[in-house]
Amino acid sequence: MPWPARYQAVRAQSQALCAPLLPEDTVVQPVIDVSPPKWHLAHTTWFWETFLLKEYAPGYQVFHPEYAFLFNSYYNSLGSRVNRADRGTLSRPPLAEVLAYRAHVDAAMAALLDHADDLPAAFYELVELGLQHEQQHQELLATDIKYILSTSPLAPAYLESSVRSEELRVDSAEAVKPTLNSQLLTLNSNWLPVPGGIYKVGFQEEGFCFDNELAAHDVLIAPFELQNRLVTNGEYLAFIEAGGYRDFRYWMGEGWDLAQAEGWEAPLYWTQRDGAWYRFTHHGLQPVSLAAPVTHISFYEADAYAHWAGARLPTEAEWETAARYFEATPAGGTWLESQRFDPQPLPADADPTQCHQLLGDCWEWTYSAYHAYPGYERAAGALGEYNGKFMVNQLVLRGGSCATPESHIRVSYRNFFHADKRWQFTGIRLAR
Amino acid sequence: MPWPARYQAVRAQSQALCAPLLPEDTVVQPVIDVSPPKWHLAHTTWFWETFLLKEYAPGYQVFHPEYAFLFNSYYNSLGSRVNRADRGTLSRPPLAEVLAYRAHVDAAMAALLDHADDLPAAFYELVELGLQHEQQHQELLATDIKYILSTSPLAPAYLESSVRSEELRVDSAEAVKPTLNSQLLTLNSNWLPVPGGIYKVGFQEEGFCFDNELAAHDVLIAPFELQNRLVTNGEYLAFIEAGGYRDFRYWMGEGWDLAQAEGWEAPLYWTQRDGAWYRFTHHGLQPVSLAAPVTHISFYEADAYAHWAGARLPTEAEWETAARYFEATPAGGTWLESQRFDPQPLPADADPTQCHQLLGDCWEWTYSAYHAYPGYERAAGALGEYNGKFMVNQLVLRGGSCATPESHIRVSYRNFFHADKRWQFTGIRLAR
Amino acid sequence: MPWPARYQAVRAQSQALCAPLLPEDTVVQPVIDVSPPKWHLAHTTWFWETFLLKEYAPGYQVFHPEYAFLFNSYYNSLGSRVNRADRGTLSRPPLAEVLAYRAHVDAAMAALLDHADDLPAAFYELVELGLQHEQQHQELLATDIKYILSTSPLAPAYLESSVRSEELRVDSAEAVKPTLNSQLLTLNSNWLPVPGGIYKVGFQEEGFCFDNELAAHDVLIAPFELQNRLVTNGEYLAFIEAGGYRDFRYWMGEGWDLAQAEGWEAPLYWTQRDGAWYRFTHHGLQPVSLAAPVTHISFYEADAYAHWAGARLPTEAEWETAARYFEATPAGGTWLESQRFDPQPLPADADPTQCHQLLGDCWEWTYSAYHAYPGYERAAGALGEYNGKFMVNQLVLRGGSCATPESHIRVSYRNFFHADKRWQFTGIRLAR
Amino acid sequence: MPWPARYQAVRAQSQALCAPLLPEDTVVQPVIDVSPPKWHLAHTTWFWETFLLKEYAPGYQVFHPEYAFLFNSYYNSLGSRVNRADRGTLSRPPLAEVLAYRAHVDAAMAALLDHADDLPAAFYELVELGLQHEQQHQELLATDIKYILSTSPLAPAYLESSVRSEELRVDSAEAVKPTLNSQLLTLNSNWLPVPGGIYKVGFQEEGFCFDNELAAHDVLIAPFELQNRLVTNGEYLAFIEAGGYRDFRYWMGEGWDLAQAEGWEAPLYWTQRDGAWYRFTHHGLQPVSLAAPVTHISFYEADAYAHWAGARLPTEAEWETAARYFEATPAGGTWLESQRFDPQPLPADADPTQCHQLLGDCWEWTYSAYHAYPGYERAAGALGEYNGKFMVNQLVLRGGSCATPESHIRVSYRNFFHADKRWQFTGIRLAR
Repeated sequence: MPWPARYQAVRAQSQALCAPLLPEDTVVQPVIDVSPPKWHLAHTTWFWETFLLKEYAPGYQVFHPEYAFLFNSYYNSLGSRVNRADRGTLSRPPLAEVLAYRAHVDAAMAALLDHADDLPAAFYELVELGLQHEQQHQELLATDIKYILSTSPLAPAYLESSVRSEELRVDSAEAVKPTLNSQLLTLNSNWLPVPGGIYKVGFQEEGFCFDNELAAHDVLIAPFELQNRLVTNGEYLAFIEAGGYRDFRYWMGEGWDLAQAEGWEAPLYWTQRDGAWYRFTHHGLQPVSLAAPVTHISFYEADAYAHWAGARLPTEAEWETAARYFEATPAGGTWLESQRFDPQPLPADADPTQCHQLLGDCWEWTYSAYHAYPGYERAAGALGEYNGKFMVNQLVLRGGSCATPESHIRVSYRNFFHADKRWQFTGIRLAR
Repeated sequence: MPWPARYQAVRAQSQALCAPLLPEDTVVQPVIDVSPPKWHLAHTTWFWETFLLKEYAPGYQVFHPEYAFLFNSYYNSLGSRVNRADRGTLSRPPLAEVLAYRAHVDAAMAALLDHADDLPAAFYELVELGLQHEQQHQELLATDIKYILSTSPLAPAYLESSVRSEELRVDSAEAVKPTLNSQLLTLNSNWLPVPGGIYKVGFQEEGFCFDNELAAHDVLIAPFELQNRLVTNGEYLAFIEAGGYRDFRYWMGEGWDLAQAEGWEAPLYWTQRDGAWYRFTHHGLQPVSLAAPVTHISFYEADAYAHWAGARLPTEAEWETAARYFEATPAGGTWLESQRFDPQPLPADADPTQCHQLLGDCWEWTYSAYHAYPGYERAAGALGEYNGKFMVNQLVLRGGSCATPESHIRVSYRNFFHADKRWQFTGIRLAR
Repeated sequence: MPWPARYQAVRAQSQALCAPLLPEDTVVQPVIDVSPPKWHLAHTTWFWETFLLKEYAPGYQVFHPEYAFLFNSYYNSLGSRVNRADRGTLSRPPLAEVLAYRAHVDAAMAALLDHADDLPAAFYELVELGLQHEQQHQELLATDIKYILSTSPLAPAYLESSVRSEELRVDSAEAVKPTLNSQLLTLNSNWLPVPGGIYKVGFQEEGFCFDNELAAHDVLIAPFELQNRLVTNGEYLAFIEAGGYRDFRYWMGEGWDLAQAEGWEAPLYWTQRDGAWYRFTHHGLQPVSLAAPVTHISFYEADAYAHWAGARLPTEAEWETAARYFEATPAGGTWLESQRFDPQPLPADADPTQCHQLLGDCWEWTYSAYHAYPGYERAAGALGEYNGKFMVNQLVLRGGSCATPESHIRVSYRNFFHADKRWQFTGIRLAR
Repeated sequence: MPWPARYQAVRAQSQALCAPLLPEDTVVQPVIDVSPPKWHLAHTTWFWETFLLKEYAPGYQVFHPEYAFLFNSYYNSLGSRVNRADRGTLSRPPLAEVLAYRAHVDAAMAALLDHADDLPAAFYELVELGLQHEQQHQELLATDIKYILSTSPLAPAYLESSVRSEELRVDSAEAVKPTLNSQLLTLNSNWLPVPGGIYKVGFQEEGFCFDNELAAHDVLIAPFELQNRLVTNGEYLAFIEAGGYRDFRYWMGEGWDLAQAEGWEAPLYWTQRDGAWYRFTHHGLQPVSLAAPVTHISFYEADAYAHWAGARLPTEAEWETAARYFEATPAGGTWLESQRFDPQPLPADADPTQCHQLLGDCWEWTYSAYHAYPGYERAAGALGEYNGKFMVNQLVLRGGSCATPESHIRVSYRNFFHADKRWQFTGIRLAR
């Protein structure tokens, strides 16, 4: 796709995600991790204005001089900014003004892209980065919107559309009586061996990657087995019913303390009514589908589940090696574009000798800290803050989720969150 | 005014206050004291639904079963409710739905009031209380809206109307160079004696009062003098410039510690630009008018100022005795209805032998704790929680403000806030 | 008693209070209100050094230049100091060094007092203040030591002496089965009327008083009745058993929220074992004596109890008027010197027409804020910070306690604490 | 050494470390990380009582039934315990009683070890673990004592002995004028290459290791260079003077935010007086020696320094590989037994072709998260909580320090702390 069309398509996608929202929904920040949707819409726009238009569009007029303060996320290089915790205190500029800001910047970008033949490669690298950056915020928009709507006891649905999650087809009787028969638990499940050896991980293809995927480098992998699909809600429910949330032996100490302090008894968004488990989704409150992958769990829960199940989480090198070994592709995964906003169950007849769901559906927690690869260097200037300064205290997740744009993923893609985070579409892939 | 008309007028006034707002403005809660405007609109409506319609309107259908949880403010008698700190996390129900809630309840109330001849006196007492309650929230709407808009660096104006504060007429040159000439500082100022004796305080007239104004009782007053007007910005600026915020000797210990911890250097909403002082107002950022009363100060600041000025704050018994002695009336005061949303300076030719500004303009901090009057009894039922449970740890303020509806005030009216609160239109009246 | 002897006696009393302690006990600060005993010993010594020796003893050498930083309590006038919350982090100087500091200052003070004939009256006023100050810290030593020892599950006794609390004589069978027979509850109880009128309160005798007891002034008192003794543990247990800690209707809102958040179910130091109530005391864990006055309760609890009992707490003006009207004297009260460290039950044959326990046994919460009396002026210099800066947000307590030195009390004495404090020997006197 | 003698020697060493302390020093907990010395003395004793005596000594009587609550550190398997943050609130049991507890347990252990021939191997494994555990607490005693004494402005010395740190010989003129001449900065410095290849890491020798050193496994190492000695105070001072603490570009984001919030300007314990840098040490306040290794720095500071210096921290696999490659031994390192309690400068004539200071002196931060090795399994029972539950969110440190007992170290030893911790003897080894 030519640059102007790609730019337009990606930008339109961000706004489309906010189309079902009311202005009120775009303002609030119920917890510090969750940013107001209008902040996302404005911040991504600020990114174009700051890194592209100010640099490459002669005579460009900034939309508003205060926006650099209001919509800088975390770039110390670019001066002071609103405290992250205060994003939800600002009713102004309102959504309409943010949309005007987007239109202003989009017009300038369109003009620039239309006459950009003589612009240097560095310019196009920044355009690519801006598009990738905007896609990252599309995922955050999807997950932050879900959290925002979930805080109301009214449990409002983001989508009333006919495109529903597979799990809505689940018979409600199942929800009321989620019988954990062994057949369901082992459905499709299989362990697939990966031979040991020296493999290359990190980005090694053509095209774009983030700096944190570099440098590609060799890793030594011992032989291991990977489960051929994500852990299901049914399997996870067995862990819950076996007392997994009440037995410290399965847990990391900090995870156990947190789970006790916050009273965790199930994944985020799960709630019990009259003995049946329901989940808050983009489609409102829905029965838990036992066959669908479990999601919205912290690393602590993923790790505790793995201990309980007699297995472990893969390292990120193992995960990437397996993804390359099994030639994972985005095809068949659930992505943002599907508007399902939920990981989908494997078909009952899925081939158990294949490795499924590696890309899409759920980010898969690995047991690897998010650290710099060998040879990693922070870029000069503000963009040096994009990834590098987060490379401690977090864990790597791999594979993308149902909220990731399909074109955004790669087998070398490294996502990262703190061990306690649950509001992303996170899931469990077992290794042993 | 007949009941239906009064009801309609008061309810309309609440919505009129929100008319200049965008939906986004009605959602946020930047600090715990400041509730979202749509919460105020809904909570006042819940009050009518809960205390009037459920009790007296046969067959009344509640608008939504969850609203009792969402919009109960602090009544333990009426069950669990949203934590006060979480009011700003809820985007739903949106403003439009809250307005529909208001329409639903208003229609039911109109029907009830139209055929209410055979309803008992207790019903009309509750209607009166509902109206007074709604007026209290109108004042909070005015002050909460101001705070909400103030958090944005865009300093948006609530009103762009031609009805402007007197102080807007101040020559901007004065703002740039706020010369504190002694003439200005003493303008109109006078000390008016009140003879000692036994006086009666508390509500002793016809009509409505809150339960906290009862029982009327005798107090022994020693002779004292009261300043004939509110302390002005000019006088307060002299305190600032004399180092009042840097000298602990004038301050209560807890006030001093707080002022240091939060870096107070001036009243709330004051900001210095290029050496001149400005204030955020309902009309946006405006130069400080030296002749207007100082406002948005805590008790700690009022008390420190009084110490510095060689005077003191009056007790609430002194204040009420003076108000009765000087026959204070609402006439001439600045009230909510004026839409000025700022205390106004005395005319230069105001009679210095009269006591001005006792009612309206600014709530006047007294040096009296908010305690029960002799003979006070909490009512039975949920309304027993209306006032009584707050009668410790707060201080009494008297006289109403420019955000108070004019019909809401009385000389016996007791307002109360914690000593550190600054977001109300609070001011200083000196005694000695 | 001549000054040197009084000085020596008061100083010795502070050290005697610490004699049963181990060095370890003198260091810790389990909560911010409770200061380490060695801090008390040093701070009182610093007071003599700072206000007396530095001013009046020519050539006096300070014991250590850092002690002004370490042992200044809250005097901004005297420079920076250890944060109050950090007093318990300092193991040095050790107790032995603090005792050497005391000896150093005592020697200098003895020399000064021996040749003090030509010193001005201001000097003797400061000596008196220093003695009174030291006595105040003796009470704090007694209560802080109790708190410190209580934190250990070993429940160590401060005193193993034969001078035991009356309540130790209580038959343990009673503790195991604290039957609340009506006879016990009403034992000795009576309501004594005080006629209305204009009374004078505040210090009006010869000798020493704190500045907060001035100026004496007239108050108008309406007729009221005062209970002739303190509320007993038995009466308070009836409140507990009637669900007083679970019914918000009796409580101030802030008190209720605190009691819920901290899980209060009984006074501080009470604990239930096998169905019987015990209390931690200076003599270790002891059964609750139903006849003894209830103590270690917050204002919130005192006020809630009074509501439940259909009565109220007296104002401080009522309390002092009653104390003067009934000619209260320290005789017969329980004081620090008794080493009982617990309020004592009235003898079964106490005259019900007399008003008992007004002085000693328990500080009595009043429903009066701790505010300045009319005409009160803060002194110049550092001692202006002694009392005046605390005159907001606290409540007055009257009458002294079993931890107060007997010579320290007066009917005009004003003690003050925040409404939530429980670690002093506080109790309840009802009015109506 | 036979078991009884080893047991006696290790136990005696713990008490010897506390011998210079006053009872007051053994009680306080100035920050949550720092435990009171008497707690360490008691907790290590509880370990013997719980895991050895209760299991293997027939008829053993526990010293006190409450001690299991008081001195359990973090074993959920062994029931409830004092909150970690409250260890410093407990004055009782006093030091003398803790020493009696030690004597009681030591006598029982001596008896058991004397007749232990027929005890199973599992018993001796536990004895070994108990000794290693006690040695770990000896290091914590040394560092916690330092922190405790540092909080007093009196800066008391733990040791006044003649065994002083090398750096005390530094001419004080240097401290006053710490001229950073380039000669000093490069003194002894050299980069030593380590060839790439597959190496085995993890414990692979005879004797004891902790479970976290297992299983030994192959790692693939790319060629790298390691600095031949620790980074010195002089080098670190150059970083400080170059503005390293004021330039976010060198820092991890969370480290930068913390450093700003806490106002870090130098390593822990450094203080500037009259332009010269001093450090609080076990010998009191001492001038900073430019030639000695920098210590008491967080991972954030180590990492920022490395960035600034154009290098990086080694991974733990690189570190261990280098230590094995260079055949590191404890000989020549500074250990607990030296009582220097400070890392020592290299002699000026140290051979720059050798790799120095790998073992002893300072724990070396690696850029590796503390995760389980392949094949790691938590042990069954309470000891499964010893290491495994901490294997997330922390970083590995290697090599031991001047507070580590010499017999306690191995090249495979894995220490771990959170990235912000500074109170251990932590230092910097560069790689590139």
